[in-house]
Amino acid sequence: MAASDGRDIFSLKTFCLVTGASRGLGQCMAIRFAEKLPAQSMLVLMARSLNGLESTSDQIAARASHVRTKVVQRDLSSQTETSLDALLRGLFEELKVAPRDFDQALLVHNAATLGDVSKMMTEIDSASDLNAYWDMNLTSPLLLNTVFFRHFTQDVVDQRVVINITSLCSIKPFKSWSIYCAGKAARDMLFNTMAAEDSSIRVLSYAPGPIDTEMQVLARRDTADDDLRQMFIGMKSEGTLLSCDQSIDRLVPLLQKNKFQSGAHLDYYDI
Amino acid sequence: MAASDGRDIFSLKTFCLVTGASRGLGQCMAIRFAEKLPAQSMLVLMARSLNGLESTSDQIAARASHVRTKVVQRDLSSQTETSLDALLRGLFEELKVAPRDFDQALLVHNAATLGDVSKMMTEIDSASDLNAYWDMNLTSPLLLNTVFFRHFTQDVVDQRVVINITSLCSIKPFKSWSIYCAGKAARDMLFNTMAAEDSSIRVLSYAPGPIDTEMQVLARRDTADDDLRQMFIGMKSEGTLLSCDQSIDRLVPLLQKNKFQSGAHLDYYDI
Repeated sequence: MAASDGRDIFSLKTFCLVTGASRGLGQCMAIRFAEKLPAQSMLVLMARSLNGLESTSDQIAARASHVRTKVVQRDLSSQTETSLDALLRGLFEELKVAPRDFDQALLVHNAATLGDVSKMMTEIDSASDLNAYWDMNLTSPLLLNTVFFRHFTQDVVDQRVVINITSLCSIKPFKSWSIYCAGKAARDMLFNTMAAEDSSIRVLSYAPGPIDTEMQVLARRDTADDDLRQMFIGMKSEGTLLSCDQSIDRLVPLLQKNKFQSGAHLDYYDI
Repeated sequence: MAASDGRDIFSLKTFCLVTGASRGLGQCMAIRFAEKLPAQSMLVLMARSLNGLESTSDQIAARASHVRTKVVQRDLSSQTETSLDALLRGLFEELKVAPRDFDQALLVHNAATLGDVSKMMTEIDSASDLNAYWDMNLTSPLLLNTVFFRHFTQDVVDQRVVINITSLCSIKPFKSWSIYCAGKAARDMLFNTMAAEDSSIRVLSYAPGPIDTEMQVLARRDTADDDLRQMFIGMKSEGTLLSCDQSIDRLVPLLQKNKFQSGAHLDYYDI
């Protein structure tokens, strides 16, 4: 099936892997997707925090018992193609499933770190921090992507979809957020290039808007730029931050209609 | 002096550091800038190839003997804040100059690598290659930038300027060039954020157009995407690649007028 003929993502029996699924937007997406996906779909929930993952899994069991879940405690930094391939093969073996058991493969690149927003760019001076940031936010999702689609090839499933969780920061500089902005810009470009290269994979870069998650706690506390920090504090106190569910409410119809331009950056406020 | 009051870059006695100055566009920029800069300006030419650097230095000596040059053989990968700071301090000591001896500090981030363009994104699977790429193309220029402006503070010189050599690839995906595109997108965003943060530094991201350099040799040879590779081969055979001098001819007046929006991405074809 060509990518331009996108079918309702929630109509197909799906193998779905969500990174950063232990809290915040990732947790919310996993639960909402589980509710909408058909029976015998499988959700693999990946993150560093086992407690958070089990909370996500418990909520899915309570609200969407028709899907299977599997929690995978894994720090996405310092991964290699070999470690991620072994992870995926191990999962298939343990769960007694194969890629051909599914009609759709859905990979949600949600895990990301904010980085150090307490410094202006000309104050940033740690090579190891920088390289760890690119590893976690660029290298790891790219390798996971490679390994995932090595198993879920075009001939094995009817539809393949990538959701890259992005940010307004990928297109607009935020003072003192240079590393986060650069990482998001690079990620958008990676997945935009993949979309151009391979029309058999539907790719959406979704900017979920300012959500009331732990990342916003860091934003209010650490942001070096006074105006930006005050803006975040104001959004919290005035109640203008979005809930995860509000943001997902706009994402879901996009995925149902599945007519977005593959590779596009779409923002909550533009939909 | 506020960044909005940009003065002709070639009117000020300048300490200029150019990375990737051993060949191609970096070599050409160094020579052309040397010709236009006032006496007692200093050009530090940095790159991996000592032969290439000496060629650049020799050409400057022949054509612009009023400026001083210093070649620095250095691989910009695997640098740290400490190694780069030591490098700069060593230079000042050896050359018997101090930042306050100059009226302008000009940093040209030209060095960059193409990366592996022989693979589509879903074929890329080397964590070490990827991390080396981000290190060379993102971490090193950022650290060099930090160290450079730690010495050339706002109170020491009258004008501070950064030229980030970018590419159309930073805004448009090129099939099989995902890593290069992502790196350029990230670099543009880094320097755009710095421009937003600090109006006392003038920042230009200049996309020089398709230039007949060694990078184009790799592009014609290695590009996995057939259409893109044929386009590069066609440009070479039809003579539509630009010379370095042609591209610099459009950059120079921009820097003389110095009225560009700081942080902007400007392309040869849009000027």
